[in-house]
Amino acid sequence: MKRIGFIGLGTMGLPMARNLMQAGYPLNVYNRTAEKAKPLAELGARVASSPADAAKDADVVFTMLTADAAVEQVILGSNGVATGARHGTLVVDCSTVSPRTSQRIAAELAKLGIEMLDAPVTGSEPQAEQRQLTFMVGGKKEQFERCRPLFDAMGKAAFYMGPSGAGSYTKLANNAMAAINLVALAEAIVMAAKSGIDPNLFLQVVAGGGARSGMAEAKGPKVIARDFRPHFMTELMHKDLKLAKNLADELGLPTPALSVAKEMLQAAIAEGFGKEDLCAVVKCYERWAGVTVGG
Amino acid sequence: MKRIGFIGLGTMGLPMARNLMQAGYPLNVYNRTAEKAKPLAELGARVASSPADAAKDADVVFTMLTADAAVEQVILGSNGVATGARHGTLVVDCSTVSPRTSQRIAAELAKLGIEMLDAPVTGSEPQAEQRQLTFMVGGKKEQFERCRPLFDAMGKAAFYMGPSGAGSYTKLANNAMAAINLVALAEAIVMAAKSGIDPNLFLQVVAGGGARSGMAEAKGPKVIARDFRPHFMTELMHKDLKLAKNLADELGLPTPALSVAKEMLQAAIAEGFGKEDLCAVVKCYERWAGVTVGG
Repeated sequence: MKRIGFIGLGTMGLPMARNLMQAGYPLNVYNRTAEKAKPLAELGARVASSPADAAKDADVVFTMLTADAAVEQVILGSNGVATGARHGTLVVDCSTVSPRTSQRIAAELAKLGIEMLDAPVTGSEPQAEQRQLTFMVGGKKEQFERCRPLFDAMGKAAFYMGPSGAGSYTKLANNAMAAINLVALAEAIVMAAKSGIDPNLFLQVVAGGGARSGMAEAKGPKVIARDFRPHFMTELMHKDLKLAKNLADELGLPTPALSVAKEMLQAAIAEGFGKEDLCAVVKCYERWAGVTVGG
Repeated sequence: MKRIGFIGLGTMGLPMARNLMQAGYPLNVYNRTAEKAKPLAELGARVASSPADAAKDADVVFTMLTADAAVEQVILGSNGVATGARHGTLVVDCSTVSPRTSQRIAAELAKLGIEMLDAPVTGSEPQAEQRQLTFMVGGKKEQFERCRPLFDAMGKAAFYMGPSGAGSYTKLANNAMAAINLVALAEAIVMAAKSGIDPNLFLQVVAGGGARSGMAEAKGPKVIARDFRPHFMTELMHKDLKLAKNLADELGLPTPALSVAKEMLQAAIAEGFGKEDLCAVVKCYERWAGVTVGG
Protein backbone atom coordinates (compact mmCIF):
# COMPACT_ATOMS: atom_id res chain seq x y z
CA MET A 1 0.00 0.00 0.00
CA LYS A 2 1.27 3.46 -0.90
CA ARG A 3 2.50 5.67 1.91
CA ILE A 4 0.72 9.00 2.39
CA GLY A 5 1.95 12.22 3.96
CA PHE A 6 -0.61 14.37 5.75
CA ILE A 7 0.22 17.89 6.95
CA GLY A 8 -2.21 19.99 8.98
CA LEU A 9 -4.18 18.10 11.64
CA GLY A 10 -6.78 20.68 12.62
CA THR A 11 -10.56 20.45 12.71
CA MET A 12 -10.67 19.09 9.18
CA GLY A 13 -7.25 17.51 8.72
CA LEU A 14 -7.40 15.22 11.74
CA PRO A 15 -10.59 13.33 10.76
CA MET A 16 -9.48 13.25 7.10
CA ALA A 17 -6.14 11.71 8.02
CA ARG A 18 -7.87 9.26 10.34
CA ASN A 19 -10.15 8.14 7.53
CA LEU A 20 -7.14 7.51 5.29
CA MET A 21 -5.60 5.37 8.02
CA GLN A 22 -8.84 3.49 8.51
CA ALA A 23 -8.88 2.77 4.77
CA GLY A 24 -5.52 1.05 5.33
CA TYR A 25 -3.02 3.65 4.11
CA PRO A 26 0.20 4.01 6.13
CA LEU A 27 0.63 7.68 7.09
CA ASN A 28 3.39 10.17 7.82
CA VAL A 29 1.77 13.01 9.73
CA TYR A 30 2.98 16.49 10.58
CA ASN A 31 1.44 19.36 12.49
CA ARG A 32 3.10 22.56 13.71
CA THR A 33 1.65 21.92 17.19
CA ALA A 34 2.99 18.39 17.55
CA GLU A 35 0.53 17.16 20.17
CA LYS A 36 -2.28 17.23 17.61
CA ALA A 37 -0.57 14.28 15.93
CA LYS A 38 -0.95 12.09 19.04
CA PRO A 39 -4.30 10.46 18.22
CA LEU A 40 -2.91 9.40 14.84
CA ALA A 41 0.38 8.21 16.34
CA GLU A 42 -1.68 5.96 18.59
CA LEU A 43 -3.27 4.48 15.47
CA GLY A 44 0.21 3.79 14.06
CA ALA A 45 1.05 6.89 12.04
CA ARG A 46 4.67 7.94 11.80
CA VAL A 47 5.02 11.43 13.29
CA ALA A 48 7.27 13.45 11.00
CA SER A 49 9.65 16.13 12.25
CA SER A 50 9.00 18.57 9.39
CA PRO A 51 6.93 18.90 6.21
CA ALA A 52 9.96 17.65 4.30
CA ASP A 53 10.12 14.59 6.55
CA ALA A 54 6.38 13.97 6.05
CA ALA A 55 6.97 13.95 2.30
CA LYS A 56 9.91 11.58 2.50
CA ASP A 57 9.05 8.15 1.00
CA ALA A 58 5.46 9.34 0.46
CA ASP A 59 3.66 8.75 -2.81
CA VAL A 60 1.05 11.41 -2.14
CA VAL A 61 1.25 14.33 0.33
CA PHE A 62 -1.89 16.11 1.53
CA THR A 63 -1.92 19.59 3.04
CA MET A 64 -4.91 20.96 4.95
CA LEU A 65 -4.02 24.39 6.29
CA THR A 66 -5.82 27.63 7.05
CA ALA A 67 -4.22 30.27 4.86
CA ASP A 68 -2.27 30.93 1.68
CA ALA A 69 0.95 31.90 3.49
CA ALA A 70 0.98 28.69 5.54
CA VAL A 71 0.44 26.55 2.44
CA GLU A 72 3.22 28.31 0.56
CA GLN A 73 5.59 28.00 3.54
CA VAL A 74 4.81 24.33 4.20
CA ILE A 75 5.19 23.31 0.57
CA LEU A 76 7.91 25.64 -0.77
CA GLY A 77 9.62 26.94 2.41
CA SER A 78 12.71 25.65 4.16
CA ASN A 79 12.21 22.03 5.24
CA GLY A 80 9.08 22.17 3.11
CA VAL A 81 7.39 19.38 1.21
CA ALA A 82 9.29 20.26 -1.95
CA THR A 83 12.64 19.54 -0.30
CA GLY A 84 11.53 16.12 0.92
CA ALA A 85 9.46 14.91 -2.01
CA ARG A 86 10.85 12.83 -4.81
CA HIS A 87 10.27 13.11 -8.55
CA GLY A 88 6.67 12.14 -9.32
CA THR A 89 5.32 12.69 -5.83
CA LEU A 90 1.81 14.14 -5.89
CA VAL A 91 1.05 17.08 -3.57
CA VAL A 92 -2.67 17.56 -2.92
CA ASP A 93 -3.61 20.82 -1.25
CA CYS A 94 -7.06 20.65 0.36
CA SER A 95 -6.80 24.12 1.93
CA THR A 96 -9.01 26.96 0.75
CA VAL A 97 -6.64 29.40 -0.91
CA SER A 98 -6.51 31.87 -3.75
CA PRO A 99 -6.47 30.21 -7.19
CA ARG A 100 -3.36 32.29 -7.91
CA THR A 101 -1.60 30.68 -4.95
CA SER A 102 -2.62 27.21 -6.17
CA GLN A 103 -1.31 27.98 -9.64
CA ARG A 104 1.95 29.53 -8.42
CA ILE A 105 2.77 26.58 -6.15
CA ALA A 106 1.88 24.10 -8.87
CA ALA A 107 4.21 25.89 -11.28
CA GLU A 108 7.08 25.87 -8.76
CA LEU A 109 6.58 22.17 -8.01
CA ALA A 110 6.40 21.34 -11.72
CA LYS A 111 9.96 22.67 -12.10
CA LEU A 112 11.04 19.99 -9.62
CA GLY A 113 9.04 17.22 -11.31
CA ILE A 114 6.52 17.20 -8.45
CA GLU A 115 2.83 16.96 -9.32
CA MET A 116 0.15 19.07 -7.65
CA LEU A 117 -3.63 19.19 -7.35
CA ASP A 118 -5.68 21.91 -5.70
CA ALA A 119 -8.46 19.95 -4.03
CA PRO A 120 -10.46 21.99 -1.52
CA VAL A 121 -13.54 20.44 0.04
CA THR A 122 -17.08 21.33 0.94
CA GLY A 123 -18.29 20.13 4.28
CA SER A 124 -17.18 20.97 7.78
CA GLU A 125 -16.19 18.86 10.78
CA PRO A 126 -19.19 16.46 10.83
CA GLN A 127 -18.82 15.74 7.10
CA ALA A 128 -15.07 15.21 7.49
CA GLU A 129 -15.70 12.68 10.26
CA GLN A 130 -18.42 10.85 8.37
CA ARG A 131 -16.53 10.67 5.04
CA GLN A 132 -19.12 12.96 3.48
CA LEU A 133 -16.79 15.60 2.05
CA THR A 134 -16.96 16.72 -1.57
CA PHE A 135 -13.66 17.46 -3.30
CA MET A 136 -13.43 19.99 -6.14
CA VAL A 137 -10.18 19.42 -7.94
CA GLY A 138 -7.92 21.38 -10.27
CA GLY A 139 -4.79 20.09 -12.02
CA LYS A 140 -3.96 17.36 -14.50
CA LYS A 141 -6.78 14.89 -15.14
CA GLU A 142 -4.46 11.87 -14.78
CA GLN A 143 -3.28 13.06 -11.36
CA PHE A 144 -6.93 13.43 -10.35
CA GLU A 145 -7.51 9.81 -11.37
CA ARG A 146 -4.37 8.75 -9.49
CA CYS A 147 -5.74 10.35 -6.34
CA ARG A 148 -9.34 9.20 -6.69
CA PRO A 149 -9.11 6.23 -4.27
CA LEU A 150 -7.80 8.61 -1.62
CA PHE A 151 -10.62 11.08 -2.20
CA ASP A 152 -13.02 8.13 -1.92
CA ALA A 153 -11.52 7.23 1.46
CA MET A 154 -12.32 10.71 2.80
CA GLY A 155 -15.45 11.86 0.98
CA LYS A 156 -18.60 11.04 -0.88
CA ALA A 157 -17.68 12.73 -4.18
CA ALA A 158 -14.77 14.23 -6.09
CA PHE A 159 -15.24 16.45 -9.13
CA TYR A 160 -12.57 17.20 -11.69
CA MET A 161 -13.12 20.90 -12.39
CA GLY A 162 -10.30 21.72 -14.80
CA PRO A 163 -6.63 22.81 -14.86
CA SER A 164 -4.57 24.04 -11.92
CA GLY A 165 -6.57 26.53 -9.84
CA ALA A 166 -9.97 25.25 -10.95
CA GLY A 167 -10.58 23.59 -7.59
CA SER A 168 -9.82 26.83 -5.77
CA TYR A 169 -11.98 28.91 -8.13
CA THR A 170 -14.88 26.55 -7.50
CA LYS A 171 -14.37 26.57 -3.75
CA LEU A 172 -14.37 30.36 -3.47
CA ALA A 173 -17.57 30.70 -5.51
CA ASN A 174 -19.14 27.89 -3.47
CA ASN A 175 -18.23 29.50 -0.15
CA ALA A 176 -19.40 32.92 -1.28
CA MET A 177 -22.76 31.31 -2.03
CA ALA A 178 -22.86 29.45 1.30
CA ALA A 179 -22.05 32.61 3.27
CA ILE A 180 -24.70 34.66 1.48
CA ASN A 181 -27.24 31.91 2.15
CA LEU A 182 -26.22 32.03 5.82
CA VAL A 183 -26.80 35.77 6.00
CA ALA A 184 -30.15 35.24 4.24
CA LEU A 185 -31.11 32.83 7.02
CA ALA A 186 -29.91 35.22 9.71
CA GLU A 187 -31.84 38.21 8.38
CA ALA A 188 -35.01 36.21 7.76
CA ILE A 189 -35.15 34.24 11.00
CA VAL A 190 -34.53 37.35 13.11
CA MET A 191 -37.14 39.28 11.12
CA ALA A 192 -39.60 36.44 11.71
CA ALA A 193 -38.77 36.17 15.41
CA LYS A 194 -39.09 39.92 15.87
CA SER A 195 -42.53 39.66 14.18
CA GLY A 196 -43.60 37.10 16.77
CA ILE A 197 -43.18 34.02 14.58
CA ASP A 198 -41.96 30.78 16.21
CA PRO A 199 -38.52 30.19 14.65
CA ASN A 200 -38.99 26.41 14.63
CA LEU A 201 -42.19 26.81 12.63
CA PHE A 202 -40.42 29.29 10.39
CA LEU A 203 -37.72 26.72 9.61
CA GLN A 204 -40.40 24.16 8.80
CA VAL A 205 -42.07 26.53 6.34
CA VAL A 206 -38.72 27.39 4.77
CA ALA A 207 -37.75 23.73 4.44
CA GLY A 208 -40.80 23.02 2.30
CA GLY A 209 -40.34 25.80 -0.23
CA GLY A 210 -38.09 27.81 -2.52
CA ALA A 211 -36.25 29.49 0.36
CA ARG A 212 -34.78 26.24 1.63
CA SER A 213 -31.01 25.96 1.92
CA GLY A 214 -28.27 23.81 3.31
CA MET A 215 -27.46 26.64 5.70
CA ALA A 216 -31.05 26.74 7.01
CA GLU A 217 -30.94 22.98 7.56
CA ALA A 218 -27.54 22.87 9.22
CA LYS A 219 -27.47 26.18 11.09
CA GLY A 220 -31.13 26.97 11.82
CA PRO A 221 -31.50 24.32 14.54
CA LYS A 222 -28.03 25.20 15.91
CA VAL A 223 -29.07 28.84 16.32
CA ILE A 224 -32.34 27.92 18.02
CA ALA A 225 -30.44 25.60 20.37
CA ARG A 226 -27.94 28.45 21.05
CA ASP A 227 -25.14 26.09 20.05
CA PHE A 228 -22.35 28.20 18.58
CA ARG A 229 -19.60 25.59 18.98
CA PRO A 230 -17.57 25.79 15.78
CA HIS A 231 -18.08 23.36 12.94
CA PHE A 232 -16.68 26.10 10.72
CA MET A 233 -15.28 29.15 12.48
CA THR A 234 -16.53 32.63 11.64
CA GLU A 235 -12.97 33.90 11.17
CA LEU A 236 -12.11 31.12 8.73
CA MET A 237 -15.19 31.78 6.60
CA HIS A 238 -14.36 35.47 6.71
CA LYS A 239 -10.91 34.66 5.36
CA ASP A 240 -12.51 32.68 2.52
CA LEU A 241 -14.81 35.60 1.72
CA LYS A 242 -11.85 37.95 1.51
CA LEU A 243 -10.30 35.56 -1.03
CA ALA A 244 -13.60 35.35 -2.91
CA LYS A 245 -13.95 39.14 -2.96
CA ASN A 246 -10.36 39.47 -4.23
CA LEU A 247 -11.24 37.02 -6.99
CA ALA A 248 -14.36 38.99 -7.91
CA ASP A 249 -12.30 42.19 -8.02
CA GLU A 250 -9.73 40.51 -10.21
CA LEU A 251 -12.52 39.36 -12.54
CA GLY A 252 -14.03 42.86 -12.51
CA LEU A 253 -17.34 41.44 -11.30
CA PRO A 254 -19.50 43.46 -8.89
CA THR A 255 -20.73 41.15 -6.10
CA PRO A 256 -22.76 43.25 -3.67
CA ALA A 257 -24.27 40.28 -1.82
CA LEU A 258 -20.85 38.73 -1.27
CA SER A 259 -19.67 42.08 0.09
CA VAL A 260 -22.55 42.20 2.56
CA ALA A 261 -21.86 38.65 3.74
CA LYS A 262 -18.17 39.47 4.18
CA GLU A 263 -18.96 42.62 6.17
CA MET A 264 -21.51 40.82 8.34
CA LEU A 265 -18.95 38.15 9.23
CA GLN A 266 -16.52 40.96 9.97
CA ALA A 267 -19.17 42.42 12.29
CA ALA A 268 -19.50 39.04 13.99
CA ILE A 269 -15.74 38.97 14.50
CA ALA A 270 -15.84 42.55 15.85
CA GLU A 271 -18.53 41.41 18.30
CA GLY A 272 -16.17 38.71 19.55
CA PHE A 273 -17.60 35.68 17.72
CA GLY A 274 -14.58 34.97 15.52
CA LYS A 275 -13.84 31.57 17.07
CA GLU A 276 -17.49 30.52 17.19
CA ASP A 277 -19.39 28.77 14.43
CA LEU A 278 -20.19 31.07 11.52
CA CYS A 279 -23.89 30.90 12.42
CA ALA A 280 -22.98 33.26 15.29
CA VAL A 281 -23.53 36.04 12.74
CA VAL A 282 -27.20 35.75 13.69
CA LYS A 283 -26.28 37.29 17.06
CA CYS A 284 -25.43 40.57 15.32
CA TYR A 285 -28.97 40.76 13.95
CA GLU A 286 -30.47 39.67 17.28
CA ARG A 287 -28.63 42.48 18.99
CA TRP A 288 -30.04 44.99 16.50
CA ALA A 289 -33.55 43.58 16.79
CA GLY A 290 -33.51 43.15 20.55
CA VAL A 291 -34.75 39.57 20.29
CA THR A 292 -33.22 36.13 20.66
CA VAL A 293 -34.10 33.36 18.22
CA GLY A 294 -35.14 30.32 20.24
CA GLY A 295 -33.09 29.56 23.34
CA MET B 1 -70.49 20.23 -0.47
CA LYS B 2 -69.73 23.82 0.57
CA ARG B 3 -69.58 26.41 -2.20
CA ILE B 4 -66.32 28.31 -2.59
CA GLY B 5 -65.63 31.73 -4.05
CA PHE B 6 -62.31 32.25 -5.83
CA ILE B 7 -61.14 35.69 -6.91
CA GLY B 8 -57.97 36.26 -8.90
CA LEU B 9 -57.29 33.69 -11.63
CA GLY B 10 -53.73 34.54 -12.57
CA THR B 11 -50.63 32.33 -12.71
CA MET B 12 -51.27 31.00 -9.21
CA GLY B 13 -55.02 31.46 -8.75
CA LEU B 14 -56.07 29.54 -11.83
CA PRO B 15 -54.40 26.22 -10.95
CA MET B 16 -55.37 26.63 -7.28
CA ALA B 17 -59.04 27.12 -8.21
CA ARG B 18 -58.84 24.20 -10.62
CA ASN B 19 -57.52 21.96 -7.86
CA LEU B 20 -60.42 22.94 -5.61
CA MET B 21 -62.87 22.01 -8.39
CA GLN B 22 -61.08 18.73 -8.97
CA ALA B 23 -61.46 18.00 -5.25
CA GLY B 24 -65.21 18.34 -5.81
CA TYR B 25 -65.96 21.83 -4.51
CA PRO B 26 -68.48 23.91 -6.49
CA LEU B 27 -66.91 27.27 -7.33
CA ASN B 28 -67.92 30.88 -7.95
CA VAL B 29 -65.02 32.48 -9.80
CA TYR B 30 -64.20 36.08 -10.55
CA ASN B 31 -61.37 37.75 -12.38
CA ARG B 32 -61.09 41.37 -13.51
CA THR B 33 -60.20 40.16 -17.01
CA ALA B 34 -63.18 37.89 -17.46
CA GLU B 35 -61.74 35.63 -20.13
CA LYS B 36 -59.33 34.11 -17.62
CA ALA B 37 -62.36 32.47 -15.99
CA LYS B 38 -63.18 30.52 -19.15
CA PRO B 39 -61.20 27.32 -18.42
CA LEU B 40 -62.96 27.07 -15.06
CA ALA B 41 -66.41 27.85 -16.55
CA GLU B 42 -65.83 24.92 -18.89
CA LEU B 43 -65.28 22.73 -15.84
CA GLY B 44 -68.59 23.94 -14.39
CA ALA B 45 -67.68 26.97 -12.27
CA ARG B 46 -70.20 29.78 -11.98
CA VAL B 47 -68.62 32.95 -13.36
CA ALA B 48 -69.48 35.79 -11.01
CA SER B 49 -70.08 39.36 -12.16
CA SER B 50 -68.23 40.99 -9.24
CA PRO B 51 -66.31 40.09 -6.08
CA ALA B 52 -69.58 40.58 -4.16
CA ASP B 53 -71.31 38.15 -6.50
CA ALA B 54 -68.48 35.62 -6.06
CA ALA B 55 -69.01 35.82 -2.29
CA LYS B 56 -72.78 35.35 -2.53
CA ASP B 57 -73.85 31.95 -1.14
CA ALA B 58 -70.16 31.05 -0.59
CA ASP B 59 -68.97 29.49 2.64
CA VAL B 60 -65.31 30.40 2.01
CA VAL B 61 -63.92 33.04 -0.38
CA PHE B 62 -60.31 32.92 -1.56
CA THR B 63 -58.45 35.90 -2.98
CA MET B 64 -55.17 35.53 -4.89
CA LEU B 65 -54.12 38.95 -6.13
CA THR B 66 -50.85 40.76 -6.81
CA ALA B 67 -50.83 43.79 -4.54
CA ASP B 68 -52.15 45.30 -1.32
CA ALA B 69 -54.35 47.88 -3.08
CA ALA B 70 -56.07 45.23 -5.21
CA VAL B 71 -56.77 43.03 -2.18
CA GLU B 72 -58.20 45.95 -0.23
CA GLN B 73 -60.38 47.03 -3.19
CA VAL B 74 -61.64 43.51 -3.95
CA ILE B 75 -62.55 42.75 -0.34
CA LEU B 76 -63.61 46.12 1.09
CA GLY B 77 -64.36 48.23 -2.04
CA SER B 78 -67.68 48.82 -3.78
CA ASN B 79 -69.15 45.52 -4.97
CA GLY B 80 -66.43 43.93 -2.86
CA VAL B 81 -66.48 40.60 -1.06
CA ALA B 82 -67.66 42.26 2.16
CA THR B 83 -70.87 43.48 0.52
CA GLY B 84 -71.76 40.03 -0.82
CA ALA B 85 -70.64 37.81 2.05
CA ARG B 86 -72.94 36.69 4.82
CA HIS B 87 -72.29 36.54 8.57
CA GLY B 88 -69.79 33.77 9.27
CA THR B 89 -68.30 33.63 5.78
CA LEU B 90 -64.55 33.00 5.83
CA VAL B 91 -62.33 35.14 3.60
CA VAL B 92 -58.91 33.61 2.91
CA ASP B 93 -56.38 35.92 1.30
CA CYS B 94 -53.53 34.00 -0.33
CA SER B 95 -51.91 37.12 -1.80
CA THR B 96 -48.54 38.33 -0.58
CA VAL B 97 -49.28 41.61 1.17
CA SER B 98 -48.08 43.69 4.09
CA PRO B 99 -49.03 42.20 7.49
CA ARG B 100 -50.57 45.61 8.30
CA THR B 101 -52.90 45.25 5.31
CA SER B 102 -53.87 41.73 6.42
CA GLN B 103 -54.60 42.98 9.93
CA ARG B 104 -56.53 46.05 8.78
CA ILE B 105 -58.77 44.05 6.43
CA ALA B 106 -59.36 41.38 9.09
CA ALA B 107 -60.40 44.09 11.58
CA GLU B 108 -62.84 45.64 9.08
CA LEU B 109 -64.36 42.28 8.23
CA ALA B 110 -64.68 41.37 11.91
CA LYS B 111 -66.99 44.36 12.37
CA LEU B 112 -69.31 42.73 9.82
CA GLY B 113 -69.09 39.28 11.41
CA ILE B 114 -66.95 38.02 8.53
CA GLU B 115 -63.94 35.84 9.36
CA MET B 116 -60.53 36.25 7.73
CA LEU B 117 -57.27 34.36 7.39
CA ASP B 118 -54.06 35.62 5.78
CA ALA B 119 -52.74 32.53 4.03
CA PRO B 120 -49.96 33.28 1.56
CA VAL B 121 -48.16 30.38 -0.08
CA THR B 122 -44.68 29.26 -0.97
CA GLY B 123 -44.26 27.70 -4.36
CA SER B 124 -44.75 29.11 -7.82
CA GLU B 125 -46.69 27.93 -10.89
CA PRO B 126 -45.43 24.31 -11.04
CA GLN B 127 -46.14 23.79 -7.31
CA ALA B 128 -49.60 25.33 -7.68
CA GLU B 129 -50.39 22.95 -10.52
CA GLN B 130 -49.06 19.90 -8.70
CA ARG B 131 -50.79 20.65 -5.38
CA GLN B 132 -47.39 21.19 -3.79
CA LEU B 133 -47.96 24.61 -2.25
CA THR B 134 -47.25 25.36 1.40
CA PHE B 135 -49.66 27.69 3.19
CA MET B 136 -48.54 29.86 6.10
CA VAL B 137 -51.60 31.05 7.91
CA GLY B 138 -52.49 33.86 10.33
CA GLY B 139 -55.83 34.35 12.06
CA LYS B 140 -57.99 32.41 14.48
CA LYS B 141 -56.93 28.81 15.02
CA GLU B 142 -60.49 27.49 14.60
CA GLN B 143 -60.83 29.23 11.23
CA PHE B 144 -57.53 27.63 10.20
CA GLU B 145 -58.98 24.22 11.10
CA ARG B 146 -62.17 25.03 9.23
CA CYS B 147 -60.15 25.76 6.11
CA ARG B 148 -57.72 22.87 6.38
CA PRO B 149 -59.48 20.54 3.88
CA LEU B 150 -59.30 23.33 1.30
CA PHE B 151 -55.60 23.91 1.94
CA ASP B 152 -55.15 20.15 1.55
CA ALA B 153 -56.88 20.29 -1.84
CA MET B 154 -54.34 22.86 -3.08
CA GLY B 155 -51.12 22.13 -1.25
CA LYS B 156 -48.86 19.70 0.53
CA ALA B 157 -48.77 21.52 3.88
CA ALA B 158 -50.45 24.28 5.87
CA PHE B 159 -48.88 25.83 8.97
CA TYR B 160 -50.77 27.80 11.59
CA MET B 161 -48.33 30.64 12.37
CA GLY B 162 -50.34 32.75 14.85
CA PRO B 163 -52.86 35.61 14.96
CA SER B 164 -53.92 37.85 12.08
CA GLY B 165 -50.89 38.97 10.06
CA ALA B 166 -48.70 36.03 11.08
CA GLY B 167 -49.05 34.40 7.67
CA SER B 168 -47.95 37.60 5.96
CA TYR B 169 -45.03 38.13 8.35
CA THR B 170 -43.83 34.61 7.62
CA LYS B 171 -44.24 35.03 3.88
CA LEU B 172 -42.20 38.24 3.70
CA ALA B 173 -39.34 36.76 5.73
CA ASN B 174 -39.48 33.61 3.59
CA ASN B 175 -39.36 35.55 0.32
CA ALA B 176 -36.57 37.79 1.55
CA MET B 177 -34.58 34.64 2.22
CA ALA B 178 -35.45 33.09 -1.16
CA ALA B 179 -34.45 36.26 -3.03
CA ILE B 180 -31.12 36.54 -1.21
CA ASN B 181 -30.44 32.87 -1.98
CA LEU B 182 -31.21 33.63 -5.64
CA VAL B 183 -28.72 36.50 -5.72
CA ALA B 184 -26.18 34.22 -4.00
CA LEU B 185 -26.62 31.75 -6.85
CA ALA B 186 -26.36 34.49 -9.47
CA GLU B 187 -23.13 35.96 -8.06
CA ALA B 188 -21.53 32.57 -7.52
CA ILE B 189 -22.41 30.91 -10.82
CA VAL B 190 -21.28 33.94 -12.83
CA MET B 191 -18.06 34.13 -10.80
CA ALA B 192 -17.48 30.45 -11.49
CA ALA B 193 -18.30 30.76 -15.21
CA LYS B 194 -16.00 33.78 -15.56
CA SER B 195 -13.26 31.69 -13.88
CA GLY B 196 -13.67 29.02 -16.56
CA ILE B 197 -15.69 26.56 -14.46
CA ASP B 198 -18.42 24.52 -16.18
CA PRO B 199 -21.67 25.80 -14.61
CA ASN B 200 -23.28 22.34 -14.70
CA LEU B 201 -20.36 20.93 -12.73
CA PHE B 202 -20.56 23.91 -10.38
CA LEU B 203 -24.22 23.15 -9.66
CA GLN B 204 -23.31 19.52 -8.95
CA VAL B 205 -20.67 20.59 -6.44
CA VAL B 206 -23.07 23.05 -4.80
CA ALA B 207 -25.84 20.46 -4.58
CA GLY B 208 -23.64 18.18 -2.49
CA GLY B 209 -22.60 20.68 0.15
CA GLY B 210 -23.46 23.52 2.48
CA ALA B 211 -24.07 26.01 -0.33
CA ARG B 212 -27.05 24.07 -1.70
CA SER B 213 -30.38 25.84 -1.95
CA GLY B 214 -33.86 25.51 -3.37
CA MET B 215 -32.99 28.40 -5.68
CA ALA B 216 -29.90 26.62 -7.01
CA GLU B 217 -31.97 23.50 -7.67
CA ALA B 218 -34.91 25.25 -9.30
CA LYS B 219 -33.21 28.14 -11.07
CA GLY B 220 -29.67 26.91 -11.82
CA PRO B 221 -30.74 24.53 -14.60
CA LYS B 222 -33.20 27.15 -15.93
CA VAL B 223 -30.38 29.70 -16.23
CA ILE B 224 -28.09 27.23 -17.97
CA ALA B 225 -30.93 26.33 -20.39
CA ARG B 226 -31.51 30.11 -20.96
CA ASP B 227 -35.16 29.56 -20.01
CA PHE B 228 -36.42 32.79 -18.46
CA ARG B 229 -40.13 32.05 -18.90
CA PRO B 230 -41.76 33.21 -15.66
CA HIS B 231 -42.65 30.79 -12.90
CA PHE B 232 -42.39 33.80 -10.60
CA MET B 233 -41.98 37.18 -12.28
CA THR B 234 -39.06 39.44 -11.36
CA GLU B 235 -41.42 42.39 -10.82
CA LEU B 236 -43.63 40.41 -8.43
CA MET B 237 -40.67 39.28 -6.33
CA HIS B 238 -39.43 42.86 -6.33
CA LYS B 239 -42.80 43.97 -4.98
CA ASP B 240 -42.51 41.36 -2.20
CA LEU B 241 -39.01 42.60 -1.36
CA LYS B 242 -40.30 46.15 -1.04
CA LEU B 243 -42.89 44.88 1.44
CA ALA B 244 -40.22 42.90 3.30
CA LYS B 245 -37.91 45.92 3.43
CA ASN B 246 -40.79 48.07 4.74
CA LEU B 247 -41.37 45.45 7.41
CA ALA B 248 -37.69 45.44 8.37
CA ASP B 249 -37.74 49.25 8.57
CA GLU B 250 -40.83 49.12 10.76
CA LEU B 251 -39.07 46.59 13.02
CA GLY B 252 -35.96 48.76 13.09
CA LEU B 253 -33.90 45.84 11.79
CA PRO B 254 -30.96 46.48 9.43
CA THR B 255 -31.13 43.93 6.58
CA PRO B 256 -28.29 44.72 4.20
CA ALA B 257 -28.54 41.45 2.26
CA LEU B 258 -32.27 41.96 1.68
CA SER B 259 -31.49 45.48 0.43
CA VAL B 260 -28.96 44.11 -2.06
CA ALA B 261 -31.42 41.50 -3.33
CA LYS B 262 -34.10 44.15 -3.72
CA GLU B 263 -31.75 46.46 -5.63
CA MET B 264 -30.53 43.65 -7.88
CA LEU B 265 -34.11 42.76 -8.83
CA GLN B 266 -34.68 46.46 -9.45
CA ALA B 267 -31.64 46.36 -11.74
CA ALA B 268 -33.13 43.36 -13.54
CA ILE B 269 -36.36 45.32 -14.04
CA ALA B 270 -34.37 48.32 -15.27
CA GLU B 271 -32.66 46.03 -17.78
CA GLY B 272 -36.10 45.02 -19.09
CA PHE B 273 -36.47 41.63 -17.33
CA GLY B 274 -39.45 42.56 -15.13
CA LYS B 275 -41.86 40.12 -16.79
CA GLU B 276 -39.31 37.30 -16.97
CA ASP B 277 -38.65 34.73 -14.26
CA LEU B 278 -36.77 36.17 -11.30
CA CYS B 279 -33.72 34.10 -12.23
CA ALA B 280 -33.21 36.65 -15.03
CA VAL B 281 -31.29 38.64 -12.41
CA VAL B 282 -28.33 36.48 -13.40
CA LYS B 283 -28.26 38.35 -16.72
CA CYS B 284 -27.26 41.55 -14.89
CA TYR B 285 -24.17 39.79 -13.55
CA GLU B 286 -23.47 38.16 -16.90
CA ARG B 287 -23.51 41.58 -18.55
CA TRP B 288 -21.03 42.88 -15.99
CA ALA B 289 -18.79 39.83 -16.34
CA GLY B 290 -19.01 39.59 -20.11
CA VAL B 291 -19.85 35.90 -19.95
CA THR B 292 -22.98 33.81 -20.41
CA VAL B 293 -23.70 30.92 -18.06
CA GLY B 294 -24.41 27.85 -20.18
CA GLY B 295 -26.54 28.35 -23.28
